[in-house]
Amino acid sequence: MSKVKIAVDCMGGDNAPAEIVKGCIETLKTGEDKLVLVGKSGIIDNELSKYSYDKERIEVVDAAEVIENEEIPTVAIRRKKNSSMVVGLNLVKEGRADAFISAGNTGALLTGATVIVGRIKGVERPCLATLIPAEKGPALLMDVGANTDCKASYIVQFAKMGSVYFENVMGVENPKVGIVNIGVEEEKGNLMTREAYKLLKETDLNFIGNAEARDLMTHVADVLVCDGFTGNIILKFGEGFAMTIFRMVKKSLMSSLISKLGAMLCIGSLKGLAKTMDYAEVGGAPFLGLTSLVVKAHGASDARAVVGAVEQCHSFIEKDIVNKIKEKL
Amino acid sequence: MSKVKIAVDCMGGDNAPAEIVKGCIETLKTGEDKLVLVGKSGIIDNELSKYSYDKERIEVVDAAEVIENEEIPTVAIRRKKNSSMVVGLNLVKEGRADAFISAGNTGALLTGATVIVGRIKGVERPCLATLIPAEKGPALLMDVGANTDCKASYIVQFAKMGSVYFENVMGVENPKVGIVNIGVEEEKGNLMTREAYKLLKETDLNFIGNAEARDLMTHVADVLVCDGFTGNIILKFGEGFAMTIFRMVKKSLMSSLISKLGAMLCIGSLKGLAKTMDYAEVGGAPFLGLTSLVVKAHGASDARAVVGAVEQCHSFIEKDIVNKIKEKL
Repeated sequence: MSKVKIAVDCMGGDNAPAEIVKGCIETLKTGEDKLVLVGKSGIIDNELSKYSYDKERIEVVDAAEVIENEEIPTVAIRRKKNSSMVVGLNLVKEGRADAFISAGNTGALLTGATVIVGRIKGVERPCLATLIPAEKGPALLMDVGANTDCKASYIVQFAKMGSVYFENVMGVENPKVGIVNIGVEEEKGNLMTREAYKLLKETDLNFIGNAEARDLMTHVADVLVCDGFTGNIILKFGEGFAMTIFRMVKKSLMSSLISKLGAMLCIGSLKGLAKTMDYAEVGGAPFLGLTSLVVKAHGASDARAVVGAVEQCHSFIEKDIVNKIKEKL
Repeated sequence: MSKVKIAVDCMGGDNAPAEIVKGCIETLKTGEDKLVLVGKSGIIDNELSKYSYDKERIEVVDAAEVIENEEIPTVAIRRKKNSSMVVGLNLVKEGRADAFISAGNTGALLTGATVIVGRIKGVERPCLATLIPAEKGPALLMDVGANTDCKASYIVQFAKMGSVYFENVMGVENPKVGIVNIGVEEEKGNLMTREAYKLLKETDLNFIGNAEARDLMTHVADVLVCDGFTGNIILKFGEGFAMTIFRMVKKSLMSSLISKLGAMLCIGSLKGLAKTMDYAEVGGAPFLGLTSLVVKAHGASDARAVVGAVEQCHSFIEKDIVNKIKEKL
């Protein structure tokens, strides 16, 4: 496979541009991909000057504007033609990059990607998919926020795209697909999940039925499909829950001298656990259903998350996921 | 206030009848409430014979049938007139008991309660409310499963009922109300949450806007309103998440001799934490919007959960919540 060229939005996210550029530099240590850094070139060059790196593998494309988090997606995409996001998406559209990663305004990225890059035929709504940590290995949760209100037919398309992704990227043949639901029985759930259940039964997917919310963390299915409101609630609630519990455990362990001593002895084991449950280890969220790859990195992405997202893009492109999704739909 | 009479379904739930009856006996140690144990009298009497207790305070009402978990709610309620659930609900309807607690089939209890006990005027749909553990004290989450598809007007009614409940039972004046959502801004969420936001702004409630799923565990609002699908997903996912993390922590701590030793030193502090996060400590879920009190106890309820649910009923009745909800709506 030829080398891959990945465009990265250096202006998006809480830690831009420093951590984003740092992450780009770190990816050069492994692999052979080329990176296109998109954003205000003065700022990017300044960040780059802090490092010594292979200049053949980094290209900077100037974009004078930035779409901020509080901007209205449709308006921002239409008006800011010179934003790092719009410029990056156009690089992908024009084939000057194989993929685009941004930690910026999610709504704007989704709107821009759909309008500029375009949908695969047969996909009514592209969706965000993300690997969530689970006890027996990560599962793919989708949609996690692109479509807050979904028809059952979208869910079926999500399931098909997710199966292709999981089979190829995670190497699991005929992955299990489940609908995120409040009970296992076919008649459980809301109007949409009940309709989706009927439709999914008729597909050639490895549909296992409903996946109860209670069992998501134990990896009851490889691909977990739901509307983007539910998926985002699960993702955010899980993140908040984990942070709260870890904070409370820490406070509790620091509450006495004896437990402090105990904590010192446990810390090695617990760090391994924290790594298993770490969302940043898992990478960004690919936006599935587009004719090229666009990845949403977490708004709080640090250099390590950028490295994860770049690796994910590499794997996605190497496995030719876009064409495989086209075949499936 | 006069003594309260609470009917308990002794046949519903995973641990019925033994743990349910045991819990009923334990409640006699505190308070002065009378209990009506509903179910197959032979079985209940047999359980009761294991204890010595004040016979004046326990009454057994025979019910020959049991509604099983897998039965279709509407059919079960219509056909099994002599089930512990239908008999118990009729006791409340006829004023022979002040409240009814069941750990049985949730759908059947909700259907039965609505049909037999009846709704408060102005309440389109009664809803299940439950206290969820949070870092700064429990918050009330509602609906947690009675109505999987909700109109925005239901959400407003949930918010009013929840405010009355939280103010009176938890003693928080003018409690903060938030919509469970995927972002804080008014335009975030799905069609239903956006409409509910507009309607809630117009009420006299202490509406704080959207409560992000990420912040639910830190107690960002006292009353958290959502549709029953979302609420149930949060509740079940939270339970599953907590169980998975505790299991993984345990496994991790047992993985080496040193961390085992450390764990022994920490265990006291961590047990306190586990208690804070324990759902059973918090009690059952009242079904709000009915003309009398019906409480859904967790299907896995043990004696301790029954004690919690009985205490909750006592407090609910003492504070005259039903009439206060009537006034509010």
